Amino acid sequence: MRIEHIKLTPVAIPDKPLLNCKGVHQPYALRTVIEVFCDDGTVGVGESYGSIKALQGLRDAVPALVGLDPFHLHDLKARVLKALPNGGGINAKTAVADHKVTDVVYSAFEVPCLDIQGKAVGRPVVDLLGGKVRERVPFSAYLFFKFAGHINEAPDDWGEVKSPDAMVAEAKRFVAEYGFQSLKLKGGVLEPDLEIETMLKLRETFPNHPLRIDPNGGWTVATAISIAKKLEGILEYLEDPVLGMEAMAEVAAATSLPLATNMIVLEFDQIAEAVRKNAVQIVLSDHHYWGGMRASTHLAKLCEAFGLGLSMHSNSHLGITLAAMTHVAAATPNLSYACDTHYPWTGVDIIEGEPFRFENGTLAVSEKPGLGVAIDQDKLATFAALYDVAGISERNDTAYMQQFIPGYERRVPRW
Amino acid sequence: MRIEHIKLTPVAIPDKPLLNCKGVHQPYALRTVIEVFCDDGTVGVGESYGSIKALQGLRDAVPALVGLDPFHLHDLKARVLKALPNGGGINAKTAVADHKVTDVVYSAFEVPCLDIQGKAVGRPVVDLLGGKVRERVPFSAYLFFKFAGHINEAPDDWGEVKSPDAMVAEAKRFVAEYGFQSLKLKGGVLEPDLEIETMLKLRETFPNHPLRIDPNGGWTVATAISIAKKLEGILEYLEDPVLGMEAMAEVAAATSLPLATNMIVLEFDQIAEAVRKNAVQIVLSDHHYWGGMRASTHLAKLCEAFGLGLSMHSNSHLGITLAAMTHVAAATPNLSYACDTHYPWTGVDIIEGEPFRFENGTLAVSEKPGLGVAIDQDKLATFAALYDVAGISERNDTAYMQQFIPGYERRVPRW
Repeated sequence: MRIEHIKLTPVAIPDKPLLNCKGVHQPYALRTVIEVFCDDGTVGVGESYGSIKALQGLRDAVPALVGLDPFHLHDLKARVLKALPNGGGINAKTAVADHKVTDVVYSAFEVPCLDIQGKAVGRPVVDLLGGKVRERVPFSAYLFFKFAGHINEAPDDWGEVKSPDAMVAEAKRFVAEYGFQSLKLKGGVLEPDLEIETMLKLRETFPNHPLRIDPNGGWTVATAISIAKKLEGILEYLEDPVLGMEAMAEVAAATSLPLATNMIVLEFDQIAEAVRKNAVQIVLSDHHYWGGMRASTHLAKLCEAFGLGLSMHSNSHLGITLAAMTHVAAATPNLSYACDTHYPWTGVDIIEGEPFRFENGTLAVSEKPGLGVAIDQDKLATFAALYDVAGISERNDTAYMQQFIPGYERRVPRW
Repeated sequence: MRIEHIKLTPVAIPDKPLLNCKGVHQPYALRTVIEVFCDDGTVGVGESYGSIKALQGLRDAVPALVGLDPFHLHDLKARVLKALPNGGGINAKTAVADHKVTDVVYSAFEVPCLDIQGKAVGRPVVDLLGGKVRERVPFSAYLFFKFAGHINEAPDDWGEVKSPDAMVAEAKRFVAEYGFQSLKLKGGVLEPDLEIETMLKLRETFPNHPLRIDPNGGWTVATAISIAKKLEGILEYLEDPVLGMEAMAEVAAATSLPLATNMIVLEFDQIAEAVRKNAVQIVLSDHHYWGGMRASTHLAKLCEAFGLGLSMHSNSHLGITLAAMTHVAAATPNLSYACDTHYPWTGVDIIEGEPFRFENGTLAVSEKPGLGVAIDQDKLATFAALYDVAGISERNDTAYMQQFIPGYERRVPRW
């Protein structure tokens, strides 16, 4: 069984004007949908970043993958490394920020290869990762402060969320519609006292829901320590309060709250320093940049060995990514936190049939061979066409924010 | 596909009177051969320790594994843990010394499960681990000082090896017959000056063969530091010169030689301390006690992340183990040293056809589905019968040494 050809389709999917410490989500989030066709007719699907940098990496790798045996993942890695001789460096300026492009590209093709393997074996991908340790995978509500609507558009049906009370209302709707049992707030947006108030009100409203806040490094060390003190006993973890290994270590030393990260530990090479400095207590996995689904299982074992907690990160994504996340999570014994997901915010998909539906905030892992999702070509064409007219090739939350707030400056830390 | 029944066959295989710092190998080494039969007729094979403690663990687990889906390795782990409620502790007194019995038992059944998976997929096991990174796996000559023959027996065809010059002759024969490109000496046997002389003579005779010595913790810290100083530039690594994490760290701090271990880092839980103390620079993997072939791939990634070298440990073994080692090694990019193996010393096997033959000290990984080895039932019956008459159920090198040297005492460190 060999790879005969590969089709990459960049898509734009409608997104909401969600706020973070660097700006606001643009009207469209970008993804690349990957279809890998084998000589025996098997097709594997995958989904990765849609930024032009990632897309270019994927495109550069494709010719090298023709003829690859989809079981030969080490060969896949070798081919990707060879096809992207300059891709191994750290790239800090794009949507694939701080991730090794080669890991991203490898992972983008590893997922369809595992989909193909599963189909060849007649087994769900979770069985290629050791089988299920849980029947259903819990996800977390991903709460965002937001503008009412996009520039020149009517308010969306979530409306404006820019106060603690509005956020409690947003959380109530998430819990009512999806049943999420954990709540994560994208912080670093309002001034710290208001975000503390928000968390306290969420705790009051949802006394039994684990809570997290993630300001994406938007706070100074002093601000972070002050906030952490006030939220001890309230949060299950505090994610990336500050930027940088040293700063994280300083905050970690000053609070009993465990610190989580997807900003200072993004690669296996960064773990040793984080452990040595005790800068991080929980690592967020993400098969898109940690080097694939199998690498995610390595990461899990490593975290277990070093007494680190493990959670799962998300970017805006479609159902192929959600399926892959669910397979990984279902096969990871020590994934002890609900996974992040942006899925409810986009609300569209390119997979056949209905989009995924969360029940009690959880998804069952598919029993079908492979990932268990197939592409609806009409839907894919719709969002590919949207990509062509969307006029964006890189995520830029700051530039879009400047359309709302002239003179807005990107400042991290902001508070 | 479900497991229908499992057959465990303890075997005794003829061994040579090989010396180490605790005594001498008995006339027989013990192994357990495992056959796992599925309801669709697929049979998976495995091989593990033969000590009564390990055998009892295997026997206790068997009833719990009937009905298991051989793809569900996490379920296998859960069943083993449940079947051996007291097996999770450290057991320091048997041949499964210092290893968690549950990891040993899990691994013993994981291998046949992977053999079954490979057969179900029509793929060699290496493909279930990401595929080959090398066509051939290099092994190391395992040099032992030895008595001429067993008690009351004529000398074997290797004769007595108890001096530097005799060891050079042994090494020459190993290199001539098997083509090994690396040489490992089991040390801690002769007095230190003689072992240093041995290594220097080996270096003189084989200027381009990487050399190692492993006294199994048989030296004091002072002795180890003194020896290390004299062998800097001669050895590729020094294995377990001393016992214990602190002692290893002390030696490591005093020498430029990298220290390897299969005695102080045997479990994932022990790695963090070893890293913190910089006690070890190279970890020896061994799927039998690290928790399986997949866990060995986790260990490899962990070693890479922490800048640790990776080599592979061996006990006396048969061809099923050798096949499994070869599949793991072929799929492990950063296994940068030749693997240990005792295989040439026993010289018999229970697999169909000829025993494995090393070429240039290497083995090709099988392309056949599964592990690529099948059991010859006649040969298995032969060595099972030998087990029944051998009269030993635990390895005890010290007791056997006392038959050669009355009053011999087990002392670690000895020198």
